[in-house]
Amino acid sequence: MPTLLHIDSSALTEGSVSREVAATFRAEWEAQNPGGTVIHRDLAADPVPHLEAAGIVAGFVPAEHRSPEQQAAFAVREELIAELEQADAVVIGTPMYNFTIPSTLKAWLDQVILIGRTAGEQPSAAGTPVTVVSSRGGSYGPGSPRESFEFVTTYLEKVLTGMLGLEVDFVVPEFTLARVNPALADFIDAADASKAKAHEDAAAKAKAVSARTAA
Amino acid sequence: MPTLLHIDSSALTEGSVSREVAATFRAEWEAQNPGGTVIHRDLAADPVPHLEAAGIVAGFVPAEHRSPEQQAAFAVREELIAELEQADAVVIGTPMYNFTIPSTLKAWLDQVILIGRTAGEQPSAAGTPVTVVSSRGGSYGPGSPRESFEFVTTYLEKVLTGMLGLEVDFVVPEFTLARVNPALADFIDAADASKAKAHEDAAAKAKAVSARTAA
Repeated sequence: MPTLLHIDSSALTEGSVSREVAATFRAEWEAQNPGGTVIHRDLAADPVPHLEAAGIVAGFVPAEHRSPEQQAAFAVREELIAELEQADAVVIGTPMYNFTIPSTLKAWLDQVILIGRTAGEQPSAAGTPVTVVSSRGGSYGPGSPRESFEFVTTYLEKVLTGMLGLEVDFVVPEFTLARVNPALADFIDAADASKAKAHEDAAAKAKAVSARTAA
Repeated sequence: MPTLLHIDSSALTEGSVSREVAATFRAEWEAQNPGGTVIHRDLAADPVPHLEAAGIVAGFVPAEHRSPEQQAAFAVREELIAELEQADAVVIGTPMYNFTIPSTLKAWLDQVILIGRTAGEQPSAAGTPVTVVSSRGGSYGPGSPRESFEFVTTYLEKVLTGMLGLEVDFVVPEFTLARVNPALADFIDAADASKAKAHEDAAAKAKAVSARTAA
């Protein structure tokens, strides 16, 4: 039975475009995989701890030599890693906060990326497709004035492929603050179009990864 | 009396190069400012909370209309913001974790960056000098094979200047894993040289920012 790992990281529950679009991906994936399992990690409602010294050191100590503190810290990592490893597909909803990902999503990455297991020569989840819903208040695309301030897709592309060996795809709803920020009032139509396209893209990608898993 | 805001974010306390070099900056700053005050934020020992919905929404609600939950969340932000605003100089020690800053430092940034106060038209701490000690296990400098995987200095330069209006300078000890990672054994001399230079640079920058404050 296929498994989807569904990660949300927006601090907002209402009005979060990254959550809405990730939910569309999930709904389509569930429609395509009626017997499938969804593991939902809401990093805002239930944050994972920051990576601590004990969790780092435990990665270099054989299991039988770990202190109780190291064992506890490593158990957190193993639980999150197991969720990634059993997933046939991953969807991550992330807003842009101050030009990059929320601290909650970075905490998840730091716990999950473990040299010798999920990262290194043979990453244990290599090849798993991950769809990242990267929402942002304004425009940061190629050619836009703020292009060089974009550290969500540029960063996640490098870390998810270069560390975890995942196959990464992005869905990018832009101008999500058009109705909130008066300076962006001219972009309300662009925001609506971008969001509509993001929902379509998310559904299409959910279909595509489901077809791949079934094949 | 001048004030230094000293931020550490390495999860490790022993053997952390970013902590050691930031400590050199601080020691020189204290020598130059005998009556000065140091505010130390150790984000690993005492992490600040992730930015939550209540803290975001509170930024858009007049103080007298905030709910108790919003007041509590905003009090966290105000305390951290006040520390930044009263600082005449800032030093931030940050390792590179998985190509970018630790989640603990991102949590601090998300709490401190507040449109209409520390960010926006007239950032309240604009012009304050900040020295970032960015340590990394390997080499990610211009021309190196891993240059495009570097999201510590590239990111912090944009967010600290573009959001907070600070004047940013970097001290970059490289190859800190040369003695730990056998693949980097050839770079032990380079690591030692890089670290020695980082300590010199940190002391020189502490002198320079102290002279500026005194002037």
